[in-house]
Amino acid sequence: MTPAETEPGQTAGDVGEFALIERLRAKVPAAGPGVILGIGDDTAVLSVDGPVLATCDIQVEGIHFDRAVCGAEDIGWRALAANLSDIAAMGGTPRFVLISLAVPAEAPLALLDGIYAGIAELGSAYDVVVVGGNVSGTPGPLTIDITLLGTAGRVVPRSGAHPGDGIWITGTAGKAAAGLYLLRHPALRVPARDSLVAAYRRPIPRVRVGQMLAGLAAVTAMIDTSDGTGSDLLHLADASGVGSVLMLEQVPLAEGLRETVQAAGRDPAAWALGGGEDYELLFTAGPAFDPTAGEFMRATGIALTRVGDVRPVREGNWLLGPRGERTPLTPVGWDHFRR
Amino acid sequence: MTPAETEPGQTAGDVGEFALIERLRAKVPAAGPGVILGIGDDTAVLSVDGPVLATCDIQVEGIHFDRAVCGAEDIGWRALAANLSDIAAMGGTPRFVLISLAVPAEAPLALLDGIYAGIAELGSAYDVVVVGGNVSGTPGPLTIDITLLGTAGRVVPRSGAHPGDGIWITGTAGKAAAGLYLLRHPALRVPARDSLVAAYRRPIPRVRVGQMLAGLAAVTAMIDTSDGTGSDLLHLADASGVGSVLMLEQVPLAEGLRETVQAAGRDPAAWALGGGEDYELLFTAGPAFDPTAGEFMRATGIALTRVGDVRPVREGNWLLGPRGERTPLTPVGWDHFRR
Repeated sequence: MTPAETEPGQTAGDVGEFALIERLRAKVPAAGPGVILGIGDDTAVLSVDGPVLATCDIQVEGIHFDRAVCGAEDIGWRALAANLSDIAAMGGTPRFVLISLAVPAEAPLALLDGIYAGIAELGSAYDVVVVGGNVSGTPGPLTIDITLLGTAGRVVPRSGAHPGDGIWITGTAGKAAAGLYLLRHPALRVPARDSLVAAYRRPIPRVRVGQMLAGLAAVTAMIDTSDGTGSDLLHLADASGVGSVLMLEQVPLAEGLRETVQAAGRDPAAWALGGGEDYELLFTAGPAFDPTAGEFMRATGIALTRVGDVRPVREGNWLLGPRGERTPLTPVGWDHFRR
Repeated sequence: MTPAETEPGQTAGDVGEFALIERLRAKVPAAGPGVILGIGDDTAVLSVDGPVLATCDIQVEGIHFDRAVCGAEDIGWRALAANLSDIAAMGGTPRFVLISLAVPAEAPLALLDGIYAGIAELGSAYDVVVVGGNVSGTPGPLTIDITLLGTAGRVVPRSGAHPGDGIWITGTAGKAAAGLYLLRHPALRVPARDSLVAAYRRPIPRVRVGQMLAGLAAVTAMIDTSDGTGSDLLHLADASGVGSVLMLEQVPLAEGLRETVQAAGRDPAAWALGGGEDYELLFTAGPAFDPTAGEFMRATGIALTRVGDVRPVREGNWLLGPRGERTPLTPVGWDHFRR
């Protein structure tokens, strides 16, 4: 069966596993530099130079995505963005994708087509090629697991922060959480509603900024803010064996975020620190970085903000409030079981 | 929470996502040659020489595995075996594993512990290292997606078969299907019951044999029999642009298989050709291979059987029956939606 023969309203179960695989593979870029053998053999065969980066991210309908607030293309885009952001956080170059799907028989083909279109749209921006994957049925929710391979020159790990480094983030914090809230409260009017919604539906991973930061020797450690700025800083501090002070007032908020938080009756810190899926980069850098930050911003067009300081591990991790009050920095991000 | 603090009867939901990840990562080999950065950063960072092989396989409870007939360790073993077999089918060396899990909150920790123990047990036999993964909750069934990366010298694709080549398989066909049937019919007494059951629960992927076959220039194409000997031959013929004749009487059956088929009231060909998950290798080889096959078998201890001939594509794909009768060879393997 070719895609052209498919009727509107058809489902995965109508066409079966092998026809579905054929259909989906036709929707994504499948050939490119480094692909010796792509989709269609027992494994892909890839040619790479230097270290290989590898990451995977599994997303489950009803937990990571919701068809009520995301289009099919958004679902695919977001699933790939999570992986691109992991590569970005190392300073690497994303290259090769493998996609595993567990699909309910009743899933519309149009949904799967859209998911693949979203993956292809975002992937094309980074010349990412789909080299493998597989499809299973499931009696449960639609589940998408994407594995992304990349390459890198200098890699920036989570573990390189030193006391005396500054703590920086790209862009703004909490916008994806605000966007999701707005999608679930369509009557709410706030400034920049569309851009907050877009931040949730179509996050832009900081791939090129990550590569440029990795080129700077002063940058010592990096992580993406997939779990939330506060939680991810704790991950970085833990991996580096350091403490930290995060200045809440310095954490940059997107336009409209404060109004959305107020309308939601939430603490602004909840989304700024605990709102995940922003896919910004949180990094540490020695003092040599500070005078170059302005030039970096002009060159990239991406805001960088110093939000805190790395401290010795014995000092612990602290949040500095607007009047200088200190409270322990604790994880307030995602836990897929406990939410 | 450390594993020692866990109470019997605890579930994934009791401990939460991050504690579960900590718990599981402690159960698998996580460091080894080529691992620059393993579990715990945004991505793994790996050092490899030569081409990289990449494959993934998603397995869903109730479709690919069933706790009624498999122990937890078996489930992990089988999930990794499917991937190891894909690497084997290229003639490659398995190296690095990423594991994505979607876990119902009510899943017992003992189940997850066992799955990881099974992955570790089989992986250790091949010095495979777990370098990444992630865990999500799910309202659906337990879902395991394993991505396996490997390296290779000469790679044997599916697409290299030429008319005049012989078609060969390692070991025997249909044993995993027979083993599963026996597990579901515990009262049935047949010879070699235990080895058929083991073939289903603990399949041995043909990694070393695949590597040795890839070292022989006469071997032209290879695939693993994960879908069933008949279906996989059709995949290989399709990728190679050739036809084939498969001699049913030549397909070697494991001890006890014929008795199990008869007890089940099935056609012997159904399991020999359509029984998936045997994870044997089906390969094609030019005439130069035939006189060396005996020596290869003595050196490896693995049976090789010539089961057919590659033909020009215009002749199509045929099954030759015991009295020389020809029937079209059609896919009779797995389709996860249509079963």
